[in-house]
Amino acid sequence: MPYFDAASAAPLHPVARQALLASLDEGWADPARLYREGRRARLLLDAAREAAAEAVGCRADELVFTPSGTRAVHAGVSGALAGRRRVGNRLVVSAVEHSSVLHAGEVHAAAGGTVAEVPVDRSGAVDAGAFAAALGEGTALACLQSANHEVGTEQPVAEVAEACRGVGVPLLVDAAQSLGWGPVEGGWSLLAASAHKWGGPAGVGLLAVRKGVRFAPQGPSDERESGRAPGFENLPAIVAAAASLRAVRAEAAAEGAQLRALVDRIRARVPELVPDVEVVGDPVRRLPHLVTFSCLYVDGETLLHELDREGFSVSSGSSCTSSTLTPSHVLRAMGVLSEGNVRVSLPAGTAEEDVDRFLDVLPGVVAGVRERLGVPAAPAAAPAAGPGSLVVDALGRRCPIPVIELAKVIGDVPVGGTVTVLADDEAARLDIPAWCAMRGQEYVGEEDAPEGGRAYVVRRTS
Amino acid sequence: MPYFDAASAAPLHPVARQALLASLDEGWADPARLYREGRRARLLLDAAREAAAEAVGCRADELVFTPSGTRAVHAGVSGALAGRRRVGNRLVVSAVEHSSVLHAGEVHAAAGGTVAEVPVDRSGAVDAGAFAAALGEGTALACLQSANHEVGTEQPVAEVAEACRGVGVPLLVDAAQSLGWGPVEGGWSLLAASAHKWGGPAGVGLLAVRKGVRFAPQGPSDERESGRAPGFENLPAIVAAAASLRAVRAEAAAEGAQLRALVDRIRARVPELVPDVEVVGDPVRRLPHLVTFSCLYVDGETLLHELDREGFSVSSGSSCTSSTLTPSHVLRAMGVLSEGNVRVSLPAGTAEEDVDRFLDVLPGVVAGVRERLGVPAAPAAAPAAGPGSLVVDALGRRCPIPVIELAKVIGDVPVGGTVTVLADDEAARLDIPAWCAMRGQEYVGEEDAPEGGRAYVVRRTS
Repeated sequence: MPYFDAASAAPLHPVARQALLASLDEGWADPARLYREGRRARLLLDAAREAAAEAVGCRADELVFTPSGTRAVHAGVSGALAGRRRVGNRLVVSAVEHSSVLHAGEVHAAAGGTVAEVPVDRSGAVDAGAFAAALGEGTALACLQSANHEVGTEQPVAEVAEACRGVGVPLLVDAAQSLGWGPVEGGWSLLAASAHKWGGPAGVGLLAVRKGVRFAPQGPSDERESGRAPGFENLPAIVAAAASLRAVRAEAAAEGAQLRALVDRIRARVPELVPDVEVVGDPVRRLPHLVTFSCLYVDGETLLHELDREGFSVSSGSSCTSSTLTPSHVLRAMGVLSEGNVRVSLPAGTAEEDVDRFLDVLPGVVAGVRERLGVPAAPAAAPAAGPGSLVVDALGRRCPIPVIELAKVIGDVPVGGTVTVLADDEAARLDIPAWCAMRGQEYVGEEDAPEGGRAYVVRRTS
Repeated sequence: MPYFDAASAAPLHPVARQALLASLDEGWADPARLYREGRRARLLLDAAREAAAEAVGCRADELVFTPSGTRAVHAGVSGALAGRRRVGNRLVVSAVEHSSVLHAGEVHAAAGGTVAEVPVDRSGAVDAGAFAAALGEGTALACLQSANHEVGTEQPVAEVAEACRGVGVPLLVDAAQSLGWGPVEGGWSLLAASAHKWGGPAGVGLLAVRKGVRFAPQGPSDERESGRAPGFENLPAIVAAAASLRAVRAEAAAEGAQLRALVDRIRARVPELVPDVEVVGDPVRRLPHLVTFSCLYVDGETLLHELDREGFSVSSGSSCTSSTLTPSHVLRAMGVLSEGNVRVSLPAGTAEEDVDRFLDVLPGVVAGVRERLGVPAAPAAAPAAGPGSLVVDALGRRCPIPVIELAKVIGDVPVGGTVTVLADDEAARLDIPAWCAMRGQEYVGEEDAPEGGRAYVVRRTS
């Protein structure tokens, strides 16, 4: 049963399992104690820190273990902001950071701080120059992921780090998705990561803070982990995390090449096999194991459900698969189609046959969903005459219905005529313009609808 | 090799180990995902929450899992204080709470809040009436441990909870030391605990917040654990924590009776076997597995080291075993001797022979340490005449030297004469009065010494 959602959580690496078992026996005691069980635990903790620091590319005394990648980001952002409070309260982040960074930013903003978001292009990448330009007066901290968790696009971290260094702003890199593949290049100041993303156990994050970076840990602290991560150390998991990081690094070149070839196959074949698909994310500068595409006229939840029935576990940034009913902020920032979104992230050792079977199954699954939703074939030839404008009321209807309703009637207006879609679904704002781009129709704009919701206006051009 | 420090971290219970292993295979995926691995993880998480809630005595939707007991306390205190910000900013705690509670209080005080400490008696217990009296105007939250982690004394939680309820103040109970032994009685509002204290794995704490308690989680949050504990759930450890809590509860009555008998033996025999020992903590209302005593004229670090050489792992609240050079705040609040302090906390299944061997070994170890420190025998008969007062300069000398120097010269002054000890070691403030109480001498008082440090005055009475 192929599991294709390694970017959410990778299955436990055999080395992690082995190390975890061994340290359940050797590493359950308090490493702060002086008796033999405590000394043994301390040795394990020290060795794990050395190994993790080497993989990160920092000194052991610059690295602490946290209970998760999310907590590492929260502690890193709040500590770095507080450490530079005198400089200012401006936080600069990319628009496609992981939610943990954005949540930390929300807390900062609620406390009176400023958060500036640097936009991304359609591939999901920030422009290093634009990022540098955002490092205005009073910038206390900048955050940039090493690679995006939803679309796999790598960010220009080294260039941005250089720009940050030039103006004396520390850069926090969220390396959660990439650390298993290699160290983060460039002169970053803080780095956060999460063990269960590389095949380590849950319950372990890393936070590295370079010497010389002003850092003031926030919230209650204790004597553990240099005062940066309170609470009893989760030692067996820490040992397993460090051991598996070393192991996946040793395998990264070979594994990465294999998965990259499989992802290349998906990137190439999906648009050939499935009509009306947009593959998103940078085709070259990307994580080796991750590919994302969106299928027009498909709702993500049904698609995921059908793929699950076929035995494939994938995730989605579509609005209808999240509890918030808004499409993923990453897809929104990229301005790409969000409906029928599928993220495939291959775990180490994925079999070629499983990818082939996925490619066999996908077209039928998408076609089935579209059929049930009553998706129109190509629009009818433009009528010579007819109403110059039509209004479609999709208020209260969820993604992808507003777009499907638009597609159904576009054939009824002449070239030059307009269709206005009334919709209150958040995804429509993203998907109606994306549909226009894919279909070669003109997106005129949106405005508040008197009936409530928004009115999206599309002009037929062909 | 007997490990007698279960109160720091209990060895992993076999059920915890078994459950952890099983859920490494079944519970590594993201419980928020809808595919089969995610659904399986969600089922495990839900079942663990049900089991833990039943053991705590709350509803499943009142309980969240946190990365540690410390983090549960921090989240509970900050969330409850913020939830009642309009009522006031007064936090009431006992003087002997775990450092995680006190650290949360320090952060509250640094942000402008008030923290009131309720004192304890020599047994380590608060008086319920005194606690109730401290619940003054503007009290947002009260915190009381179920039982003390250093001396084992149980607190009158049910009475205090009733007093809190009477004035509408929520009570947070830190049940870290007692939850494995049974549910916390009484009408508490919030409860925190830590799995590795009951034989569960590291990396799991519990926070229960009763419905109706105003609670505003602080810091960044996400959609996990009802917004009260951000970050990917450490599911295998959570499953192991819940399974082992159920298992230790099933064994608690029998196990508790056995350990109580062993602790009773230690409590009775140590003062018979070792001269100048004070057994501290309530002799009856206490945890079954924990006993603490202090040995006059002994330094804690050497004592722990010698016991470790004999194969016994214990901990200590003496100043010289901590990095801060101050005696444990618990011993200070109780006003008991802090030097030569030993905490014995027996893990489940402790063998009677191991306790007997400990009792065999202890007298020689203590005598050896005293001999090396040059401890005087009984004071000489009072001289008929001689200097009416003596000054001993122990500035710069660490515990237990100032007390030993006092003991050496007390015989040189006549009855009615005084010895003044100059000392700058924090433990002297606690241990000189305690020595006087044990020796039947009069403690006159202390004042700033012109030479620096403090001058402690003792009058010979016999």
